[in-house]
Amino acid sequence: MPEGDETPHPYFPRSLSLLGYKPNRVPLTELLGLFFGLVALALIGTWILAGRYKKGGADRVIICWFVACGFIHCVLEGYFAVNHKTLVGGGSYLAEMWKEYAHGDSRYLTSDSFVVCMETITALVDGPLSFAAAIAHLTGSRHRYPLQLIVSLCQLYGDTLYMCIEAKDGFIHGEFGHPLHFWFYFVFLNLFWIFVPLILIVQAYIALTVGTSRESTRGKKQK
Amino acid sequence: MPEGDETPHPYFPRSLSLLGYKPNRVPLTELLGLFFGLVALALIGTWILAGRYKKGGADRVIICWFVACGFIHCVLEGYFAVNHKTLVGGGSYLAEMWKEYAHGDSRYLTSDSFVVCMETITALVDGPLSFAAAIAHLTGSRHRYPLQLIVSLCQLYGDTLYMCIEAKDGFIHGEFGHPLHFWFYFVFLNLFWIFVPLILIVQAYIALTVGTSRESTRGKKQK
Repeated sequence: MPEGDETPHPYFPRSLSLLGYKPNRVPLTELLGLFFGLVALALIGTWILAGRYKKGGADRVIICWFVACGFIHCVLEGYFAVNHKTLVGGGSYLAEMWKEYAHGDSRYLTSDSFVVCMETITALVDGPLSFAAAIAHLTGSRHRYPLQLIVSLCQLYGDTLYMCIEAKDGFIHGEFGHPLHFWFYFVFLNLFWIFVPLILIVQAYIALTVGTSRESTRGKKQK
Repeated sequence: MPEGDETPHPYFPRSLSLLGYKPNRVPLTELLGLFFGLVALALIGTWILAGRYKKGGADRVIICWFVACGFIHCVLEGYFAVNHKTLVGGGSYLAEMWKEYAHGDSRYLTSDSFVVCMETITALVDGPLSFAAAIAHLTGSRHRYPLQLIVSLCQLYGDTLYMCIEAKDGFIHGEFGHPLHFWFYFVFLNLFWIFVPLILIVQAYIALTVGTSRESTRGKKQK
Protein backbone atom coordinates (compact mmCIF):
# COMPACT_ATOMS: atom_id res chain seq x y z
CA MET A 1 0.00 0.00 0.00
CA PRO A 2 1.16 3.62 -0.55
CA GLU A 3 3.08 4.99 2.44
CA GLY A 4 1.35 7.30 4.95
CA ASP A 5 2.76 10.69 3.90
CA GLU A 6 2.20 10.19 0.16
CA THR A 7 -0.62 11.94 -1.70
CA PRO A 8 -3.24 9.23 -2.40
CA HIS A 9 -3.39 8.40 -6.11
CA PRO A 10 -6.01 6.76 -8.34
CA TYR A 11 -3.63 4.46 -10.30
CA PHE A 12 -3.23 0.69 -10.53
CA PRO A 13 -1.99 -1.54 -9.02
CA ARG A 14 -3.37 0.12 -5.88
CA SER A 15 -0.18 -0.76 -3.97
CA LEU A 16 1.88 1.38 -6.38
CA SER A 17 4.06 3.99 -4.67
CA LEU A 18 4.11 7.30 -6.57
CA LEU A 19 6.31 9.77 -4.69
CA GLY A 20 5.70 13.41 -5.63
CA TYR A 21 2.32 12.70 -7.24
CA LYS A 22 0.20 15.78 -7.89
CA PRO A 23 -3.43 15.34 -9.01
CA ASN A 24 -4.48 16.91 -12.33
CA ARG A 25 -5.95 20.40 -12.15
CA VAL A 26 -7.22 20.64 -15.74
CA PRO A 27 -10.69 19.03 -16.07
CA LEU A 28 -10.95 15.78 -18.07
CA THR A 29 -13.19 17.29 -20.77
CA GLU A 30 -10.71 20.14 -21.33
CA LEU A 31 -7.76 17.72 -21.65
CA LEU A 32 -9.55 15.37 -24.05
CA GLY A 33 -11.07 18.31 -25.93
CA LEU A 34 -7.63 19.90 -26.35
CA PHE A 35 -6.03 16.65 -27.54
CA PHE A 36 -8.72 15.61 -30.01
CA GLY A 37 -9.26 19.25 -31.03
CA LEU A 38 -5.59 19.68 -31.97
CA VAL A 39 -5.59 16.34 -33.82
CA ALA A 40 -8.76 17.41 -35.67
CA LEU A 41 -7.16 20.77 -36.57
CA ALA A 42 -4.08 19.01 -37.98
CA LEU A 43 -6.34 16.65 -39.92
CA ILE A 44 -8.48 19.43 -41.40
CA GLY A 45 -5.43 21.50 -42.35
CA THR A 46 -3.76 18.52 -43.99
CA TRP A 47 -6.98 17.50 -45.77
CA ILE A 48 -7.23 20.97 -47.35
CA LEU A 49 -3.51 21.01 -48.25
CA ALA A 50 -3.75 17.54 -49.83
CA GLY A 51 -6.74 18.74 -51.86
CA ARG A 52 -4.60 21.53 -53.34
CA TYR A 53 -2.15 18.85 -54.51
CA LYS A 54 -5.12 17.26 -56.33
CA LYS A 55 -4.91 14.07 -54.28
CA GLY A 56 -7.78 11.55 -54.38
CA GLY A 57 -9.79 10.46 -51.33
CA ALA A 58 -7.67 7.44 -50.31
CA ASP A 59 -4.39 9.35 -50.68
CA ARG A 60 -5.75 12.25 -48.63
CA VAL A 61 -6.78 9.89 -45.82
CA ILE A 62 -3.29 8.33 -45.78
CA ILE A 63 -1.58 11.74 -45.78
CA CYS A 64 -3.83 12.92 -42.92
CA TRP A 65 -3.06 9.73 -40.98
CA PHE A 66 0.70 10.21 -41.25
CA VAL A 67 0.53 13.90 -40.30
CA ALA A 68 -1.58 13.05 -37.22
CA CYS A 69 0.90 10.25 -36.35
CA GLY A 70 3.84 12.64 -36.82
CA PHE A 71 2.37 15.16 -34.39
CA ILE A 72 1.38 12.57 -31.80
CA HIS A 73 4.75 10.74 -32.00
CA CYS A 74 6.93 13.86 -31.96
CA VAL A 75 4.99 16.11 -29.58
CA LEU A 76 3.04 13.88 -27.16
CA GLU A 77 5.33 10.85 -27.12
CA GLY A 78 8.44 13.03 -27.50
CA TYR A 79 7.36 14.93 -24.38
CA PHE A 80 7.00 11.65 -22.53
CA ALA A 81 10.42 10.41 -23.69
CA VAL A 82 12.10 13.56 -22.34
CA ASN A 83 10.02 14.13 -19.17
CA HIS A 84 8.98 10.65 -18.00
CA LYS A 85 10.89 10.95 -14.71
CA THR A 86 9.03 14.07 -13.53
CA LEU A 87 5.66 13.36 -15.14
CA VAL A 88 3.98 12.21 -11.92
CA GLY A 89 4.30 15.68 -10.38
CA GLY A 90 4.00 17.66 -13.64
CA GLY A 91 1.39 20.38 -14.18
CA SER A 92 1.71 21.22 -17.90
CA TYR A 93 -1.03 20.30 -20.36
CA LEU A 94 1.11 17.52 -21.85
CA ALA A 95 2.05 16.15 -18.41
CA GLU A 96 -1.62 16.16 -17.39
CA MET A 97 -2.58 14.36 -20.63
CA TRP A 98 -0.14 11.59 -19.72
CA LYS A 99 -1.41 11.48 -16.13
CA GLU A 100 -4.91 11.08 -17.54
CA TYR A 101 -3.83 8.31 -19.97
CA ALA A 102 -1.93 6.62 -17.13
CA HIS A 103 -5.29 5.72 -15.53
CA GLY A 104 -5.30 3.03 -18.22
CA ASP A 105 -1.59 2.22 -17.88
CA SER A 106 0.42 3.36 -14.85
CA ARG A 107 3.70 2.28 -16.49
CA TYR A 108 3.78 5.80 -17.90
CA LEU A 109 4.26 7.23 -14.41
CA THR A 110 6.96 4.82 -13.20
CA SER A 111 9.51 5.19 -16.03
CA ASP A 112 8.92 1.55 -16.97
CA SER A 113 12.00 0.55 -18.98
CA PHE A 114 10.12 -0.98 -21.91
CA VAL A 115 7.67 1.93 -22.20
CA VAL A 116 10.45 4.56 -22.03
CA CYS A 117 12.61 2.81 -24.67
CA MET A 118 9.66 2.07 -26.98
CA GLU A 119 8.33 5.65 -26.73
CA THR A 120 11.79 7.10 -27.32
CA ILE A 121 12.14 5.05 -30.51
CA THR A 122 8.61 6.09 -31.52
CA ALA A 123 9.39 9.79 -30.99
CA LEU A 124 12.82 9.71 -32.65
CA VAL A 125 12.12 7.32 -35.55
CA ASP A 126 8.38 6.86 -36.19
CA GLY A 127 7.63 10.58 -35.71
CA PRO A 128 9.97 12.15 -38.29
CA LEU A 129 9.41 9.23 -40.70
CA SER A 130 5.63 9.78 -40.45
CA PHE A 131 6.09 13.35 -41.71
CA ALA A 132 8.46 12.07 -44.41
CA ALA A 133 5.81 9.51 -45.49
CA ALA A 134 3.15 12.23 -45.58
CA ILE A 135 5.36 14.48 -47.75
CA ALA A 136 6.27 11.53 -50.02
CA HIS A 137 2.57 10.76 -50.57
CA LEU A 138 1.79 14.44 -51.11
CA THR A 139 4.43 14.77 -53.82
CA GLY A 140 3.85 11.30 -55.31
CA SER A 141 7.50 10.41 -54.62
CA ARG A 142 8.70 6.83 -55.17
CA HIS A 143 9.77 6.86 -51.51
CA ARG A 144 6.13 6.82 -50.42
CA TYR A 145 5.53 3.08 -50.20
CA PRO A 146 8.92 2.09 -48.73
CA LEU A 147 8.44 4.84 -46.11
CA GLN A 148 4.83 3.77 -45.47
CA LEU A 149 6.03 0.19 -44.96
CA ILE A 150 8.82 1.21 -42.56
CA VAL A 151 6.71 3.59 -40.42
CA SER A 152 3.73 1.24 -40.25
CA LEU A 153 5.88 -1.76 -39.35
CA CYS A 154 7.62 0.17 -36.55
CA GLN A 155 4.21 1.26 -35.21
CA LEU A 156 2.78 -2.25 -35.47
CA TYR A 157 5.80 -3.87 -33.80
CA GLY A 158 5.97 -1.35 -30.94
CA ASP A 159 2.25 -1.39 -30.26
CA THR A 160 1.92 -5.17 -30.47
CA LEU A 161 4.72 -5.58 -27.92
CA TYR A 162 3.16 -2.86 -25.76
CA MET A 163 -0.24 -4.58 -25.62
CA CYS A 164 1.15 -8.14 -25.36
CA ILE A 165 3.46 -7.31 -22.44
CA GLU A 166 0.57 -5.73 -20.51
CA ALA A 167 -1.64 -8.75 -21.31
CA LYS A 168 1.12 -11.13 -20.12
CA ASP A 169 1.39 -9.08 -16.91
CA GLY A 170 -2.36 -9.62 -16.38
CA PHE A 171 -3.47 -6.03 -17.13
CA ILE A 172 -2.35 -4.98 -13.65
CA HIS A 173 -1.44 -1.38 -14.56
CA GLY A 174 -5.00 -0.16 -15.01
CA GLU A 175 -8.53 -0.96 -13.82
CA PHE A 176 -9.40 -3.96 -15.98
CA GLY A 177 -12.76 -3.46 -17.72
CA HIS A 178 -13.11 0.27 -16.92
CA PRO A 179 -15.04 1.76 -19.87
CA LEU A 180 -12.88 4.89 -20.32
CA HIS A 181 -9.50 3.89 -18.85
CA PHE A 182 -9.28 0.28 -20.05
CA TRP A 183 -11.57 0.03 -23.07
CA PHE A 184 -11.10 3.48 -24.58
CA TYR A 185 -7.55 4.54 -23.60
CA PHE A 186 -5.80 1.17 -23.46
CA VAL A 187 -7.73 -1.03 -25.89
CA PHE A 188 -9.40 1.23 -28.47
CA LEU A 189 -6.69 3.86 -28.94
CA ASN A 190 -3.94 1.26 -29.13
CA LEU A 191 -5.84 -1.10 -31.44
CA PHE A 192 -6.00 1.86 -33.82
CA TRP A 193 -2.20 1.66 -34.15
CA ILE A 194 -2.47 -2.09 -34.79
CA PHE A 195 -5.16 -2.20 -37.47
CA VAL A 196 -4.36 0.95 -39.47
CA PRO A 197 -0.62 0.06 -39.77
CA LEU A 198 -1.62 -3.52 -40.71
CA ILE A 199 -3.79 -2.24 -43.57
CA LEU A 200 -1.06 0.21 -44.67
CA ILE A 201 1.60 -2.53 -44.58
CA VAL A 202 -0.52 -4.77 -46.83
CA GLN A 203 -1.21 -1.85 -49.19
CA ALA A 204 2.47 -0.84 -49.36
CA TYR A 205 3.57 -4.46 -49.82
CA ILE A 206 1.16 -4.95 -52.73
CA ALA A 207 2.24 -1.63 -54.28
CA LEU A 208 5.92 -2.63 -53.96
CA THR A 209 5.43 -6.07 -55.48
CA VAL A 210 2.50 -6.52 -57.86
CA GLY A 211 0.57 -3.25 -57.77
CA THR A 212 2.98 -0.43 -58.63
CA SER A 213 2.78 -0.43 -62.42
CA ARG A 214 -0.98 -0.94 -62.51
CA GLU A 215 -1.50 1.81 -59.90
CA SER A 216 0.58 4.37 -61.73
CA THR A 217 -1.24 3.60 -64.99
CA ARG A 218 -4.57 4.10 -63.22
CA GLY A 219 -3.29 7.36 -61.71
CA LYS A 220 -2.36 8.68 -65.15
CA LYS A 221 -5.75 7.72 -66.60
CA GLN A 222 -7.53 9.59 -63.79
CA LYS A 223 -5.57 12.73 -64.56
CA MET B 1 20.12 -13.30 -1.49
CA PRO B 2 18.84 -16.71 -2.69
CA GLU B 3 16.96 -18.64 0.01
CA GLY B 4 18.71 -21.38 1.98
CA ASP B 5 17.28 -24.50 0.34
CA GLU B 6 17.77 -23.32 -3.25
CA THR B 7 20.55 -24.67 -5.47
CA PRO B 8 23.14 -21.87 -5.69
CA HIS B 9 23.22 -20.33 -9.18
CA PRO B 10 25.78 -18.28 -11.12
CA TYR B 11 23.37 -15.66 -12.55
CA PHE B 12 22.99 -11.91 -12.03
CA PRO B 13 21.77 -10.01 -10.11
CA ARG B 14 23.22 -12.24 -7.37
CA SER B 15 20.07 -11.75 -5.27
CA LEU B 16 17.96 -13.40 -8.00
CA SER B 17 15.82 -16.30 -6.77
CA LEU B 18 15.71 -19.17 -9.28
CA LEU B 19 13.53 -21.97 -7.85
CA GLY B 20 14.12 -25.35 -9.48
CA TYR B 21 17.46 -24.35 -10.99
CA LYS B 22 19.57 -27.24 -12.27
CA PRO B 23 23.17 -26.60 -13.35
CA ASN B 24 24.15 -27.48 -16.93
CA ARG B 25 25.62 -30.96 -17.48
CA VAL B 26 26.80 -30.50 -21.06
CA PRO B 27 30.27 -28.83 -21.15
CA LEU B 28 30.49 -25.25 -22.49
CA THR B 29 32.67 -26.22 -25.48
CA GLU B 30 30.17 -28.91 -26.53
CA LEU B 31 27.22 -26.48 -26.30
CA LEU B 32 28.96 -23.71 -28.25
CA GLY B 33 30.43 -26.23 -30.70
CA LEU B 34 26.99 -27.72 -31.33
CA PHE B 35 25.36 -24.32 -31.84
CA PHE B 36 27.99 -22.82 -34.12
CA GLY B 37 28.49 -26.20 -35.84
CA LEU B 38 24.80 -26.44 -36.76
CA VAL B 39 24.76 -22.82 -37.93
CA ALA B 40 27.88 -23.51 -40.03
CA LEU B 41 26.27 -26.63 -41.53
CA ALA B 42 23.15 -24.65 -42.49
CA LEU B 43 25.37 -21.94 -44.00
CA ILE B 44 27.48 -24.40 -46.03
CA GLY B 45 24.40 -26.26 -47.30
CA THR B 46 22.70 -23.01 -48.29
CA TRP B 47 25.88 -21.66 -49.91
CA ILE B 48 26.09 -24.77 -52.13
CA LEU B 49 22.36 -24.66 -52.93
CA ALA B 50 22.57 -20.94 -53.83
CA GLY B 51 25.51 -21.73 -56.12
CA ARG B 52 23.33 -24.20 -58.06
CA TYR B 53 20.85 -21.36 -58.65
CA LYS B 54 23.79 -19.44 -60.19
CA LYS B 55 23.63 -16.69 -57.56
CA GLY B 56 26.50 -14.21 -57.23
CA GLY B 57 28.59 -13.71 -54.07
CA ALA B 58 26.52 -10.93 -52.47
CA ASP B 59 23.22 -12.73 -53.11
CA ARG B 60 24.62 -15.97 -51.69
CA VAL B 61 25.71 -14.20 -48.50
CA ILE B 62 22.22 -12.67 -48.09
CA ILE B 63 20.51 -16.03 -48.70
CA CYS B 64 22.82 -17.72 -46.17
CA TRP B 65 22.11 -14.97 -43.64
CA PHE B 66 18.34 -15.39 -43.93
CA VAL B 67 18.53 -19.19 -43.70
CA ALA B 68 20.70 -18.96 -40.56
CA CYS B 69 18.24 -16.38 -39.12
CA GLY B 70 15.29 -18.63 -39.97
CA PHE B 71 16.81 -21.57 -38.09
CA ILE B 72 17.86 -19.51 -35.08
CA HIS B 73 14.50 -17.68 -34.85
CA CYS B 74 12.31 -20.76 -35.37
CA VAL B 75 14.30 -23.43 -33.50
CA LEU B 76 16.30 -21.70 -30.74
CA GLU B 77 14.02 -18.74 -30.08
CA GLY B 78 10.90 -20.81 -30.80
CA TYR B 79 12.04 -23.27 -28.12
CA PHE B 80 12.44 -20.40 -25.68
CA ALA B 81 9.00 -18.96 -26.52
CA VAL B 82 7.35 -22.33 -25.75
CA ASN B 83 9.50 -23.48 -22.80
CA HIS B 84 10.57 -20.28 -21.01
CA LYS B 85 8.74 -21.21 -17.80
CA THR B 86 10.62 -24.49 -17.28
CA LEU B 87 13.95 -23.48 -18.80
CA VAL B 88 15.71 -22.97 -15.46
CA GLY B 89 15.41 -26.67 -14.61
CA GLY B 90 15.65 -27.98 -18.18
CA GLY B 91 18.23 -30.55 -19.29
CA SER B 92 17.82 -30.68 -23.10
CA TYR B 93 20.52 -29.27 -25.40
CA LEU B 94 18.34 -26.28 -26.27
CA ALA B 95 17.49 -25.58 -22.62
CA GLU B 96 21.19 -25.79 -21.70
CA MET B 97 22.07 -23.40 -24.55
CA TRP B 98 19.66 -20.87 -23.09
CA LYS B 99 21.00 -21.44 -19.56
CA GLU B 100 24.48 -20.77 -20.94
CA TYR B 101 23.35 -17.60 -22.77
CA ALA B 102 21.51 -16.47 -19.62
CA HIS B 103 24.89 -15.88 -17.97
CA GLY B 104 24.86 -12.74 -20.08
CA ASP B 105 21.17 -12.02 -19.52
CA SER B 106 19.23 -13.71 -16.73
CA ARG B 107 15.90 -12.34 -18.04
CA TYR B 108 15.80 -15.53 -20.10
CA LEU B 109 15.38 -17.61 -16.92
CA THR B 110 12.72 -15.48 -15.23
CA SER B 111 10.11 -15.33 -18.02
CA ASP B 112 10.68 -11.56 -18.26
CA SER B 113 7.56 -10.19 -19.97
CA PHE B 114 9.38 -8.13 -22.58
CA VAL B 115 11.80 -10.93 -23.49
CA VAL B 116 9.03 -13.55 -23.76
CA CYS B 117 6.82 -11.33 -25.96
CA MET B 118 9.71 -10.16 -28.16
CA GLU B 119 11.04 -13.71 -28.61
CA THR B 120 7.56 -15.04 -29.40
CA ILE B 121 7.14 -12.42 -32.15
CA THR B 122 10.65 -13.24 -33.41
CA ALA B 123 9.88 -16.97 -33.58
CA LEU B 124 6.41 -16.58 -35.12
CA VAL B 125 7.05 -13.68 -37.52
CA ASP B 126 10.77 -13.09 -38.15
CA GLY B 127 11.52 -16.83 -38.40
CA PRO B 128 9.12 -17.89 -41.19
CA LEU B 129 9.64 -14.57 -43.00
CA SER B 130 13.42 -15.14 -42.95
CA PHE B 131 12.93 -18.40 -44.85
CA ALA B 132 10.51 -16.64 -47.19
CA ALA B 133 13.12 -13.91 -47.84
CA ALA B 134 15.79 -16.57 -48.50
CA ILE B 135 13.52 -18.36 -51.02
CA ALA B 136 12.57 -15.04 -52.65
CA HIS B 137 16.26 -14.16 -53.13
CA LEU B 138 17.02 -17.67 -54.38
CA THR B 139 14.32 -17.49 -57.03
CA GLY B 140 14.86 -13.80 -57.84
CA SER B 141 11.24 -13.08 -56.93
CA ARG B 142 10.04 -9.46 -56.76
CA HIS B 143 9.05 -10.17 -53.17
CA ARG B 144 12.71 -10.33 -52.16
CA TYR B 145 13.33 -6.69 -51.22
CA PRO B 146 9.97 -6.02 -49.53
CA LEU B 147 10.50 -9.22 -47.50
CA GLN B 148 14.13 -8.29 -46.74
CA LEU B 149 12.95 -4.87 -45.53
CA ILE B 150 10.22 -6.34 -43.31
CA VAL B 151 12.36 -9.08 -41.70
CA SER B 152 15.35 -6.79 -41.16
CA LEU B 153 13.22 -4.02 -39.65
CA CYS B 154 11.55 -6.46 -37.23
CA GLN B 155 14.98 -7.78 -36.21
CA LEU B 156 16.41 -4.28 -35.82
CA TYR B 157 13.44 -3.00 -33.80
CA GLY B 158 13.32 -6.03 -31.48
CA ASP B 159 17.06 -6.12 -30.88
CA THR B 160 17.38 -2.36 -30.37
CA LEU B 161 14.65 -2.47 -27.74
CA TYR B 162 16.26 -5.54 -26.17
CA MET B 163 19.66 -3.86 -25.76
CA CYS B 164 18.28 -0.42 -24.81
CA ILE B 165 16.04 -1.80 -22.06
CA GLU B 166 18.96 -3.71 -20.53
CA ALA B 167 21.15 -0.59 -20.80
CA LYS B 168 18.44 1.50 -19.10
CA ASP B 169 18.22 -1.12 -16.34
CA GLY B 170 21.99 -0.68 -15.80
CA PHE B 171 23.08 -4.06 -17.25
CA ILE B 172 22.03 -5.75 -14.00
CA HIS B 173 21.09 -9.11 -15.57
CA GLY B 174 24.65 -10.23 -16.31
CA GLU B 175 28.20 -9.66 -15.08
CA PHE B 176 29.02 -6.30 -16.64
CA GLY B 177 32.33 -6.42 -18.52
CA HIS B 178 32.71 -10.24 -18.45
CA PRO B 179 34.57 -11.15 -21.69
CA LEU B 180 32.41 -14.14 -22.66
CA HIS B 181 29.05 -13.44 -20.97
CA PHE B 182 28.83 -9.69 -21.44
CA TRP B 183 31.03 -8.86 -24.40
CA PHE B 184 30.53 -11.96 -26.55
CA TYR B 185 26.99 -13.17 -25.69
CA PHE B 186 25.26 -9.92 -24.88
CA VAL B 187 27.13 -7.28 -26.90
CA PHE B 188 28.74 -9.00 -29.90
CA LEU B 189 26.02 -11.51 -30.79
CA ASN B 190 23.27 -8.92 -30.42
CA LEU B 191 25.12 -6.16 -32.28
CA PHE B 192 25.22 -8.61 -35.18
CA TRP B 193 21.42 -8.36 -35.39
CA ILE B 194 21.67 -4.56 -35.30
CA PHE B 195 24.31 -3.93 -37.98
CA VAL B 196 23.45 -6.65 -40.52
CA PRO B 197 19.71 -5.72 -40.55
CA LEU B 198 20.69 -2.02 -40.82
CA ILE B 199 22.79 -2.73 -43.92
CA LEU B 200 20.04 -4.93 -45.40
CA ILE B 201 17.38 -2.26 -44.73
CA VAL B 202 19.46 0.35 -46.55
CA GLN B 203 20.09 -2.05 -49.45
CA ALA B 204 16.41 -3.01 -49.72
CA TYR B 205 15.33 0.64 -49.46
CA ILE B 206 17.66 1.67 -52.27
CA ALA B 207 16.54 -1.29 -54.40
CA LEU B 208 12.87 -0.38 -53.80
CA THR B 209 13.32 3.29 -54.65
CA VAL B 210 16.19 4.24 -56.93
CA GLY B 211 18.07 1.02 -57.53
CA THR B 212 15.59 -1.55 -58.85
CA SER B 213 15.71 -0.83 -62.57
CA ARG B 214 19.47 -0.30 -62.66
CA GLU B 215 20.07 -3.50 -60.64
CA SER B 216 17.96 -5.68 -62.89
CA THR B 217 19.67 -4.23 -65.98
CA ARG B 218 23.07 -4.96 -64.43
CA GLY B 219 21.89 -8.50 -63.57
CA LYS B 220 20.88 -9.16 -67.17
CA LYS B 221 24.19 -7.83 -68.52
CA GLN B 222 26.13 -10.12 -66.16
CA LYS B 223 24.22 -13.15 -67.40
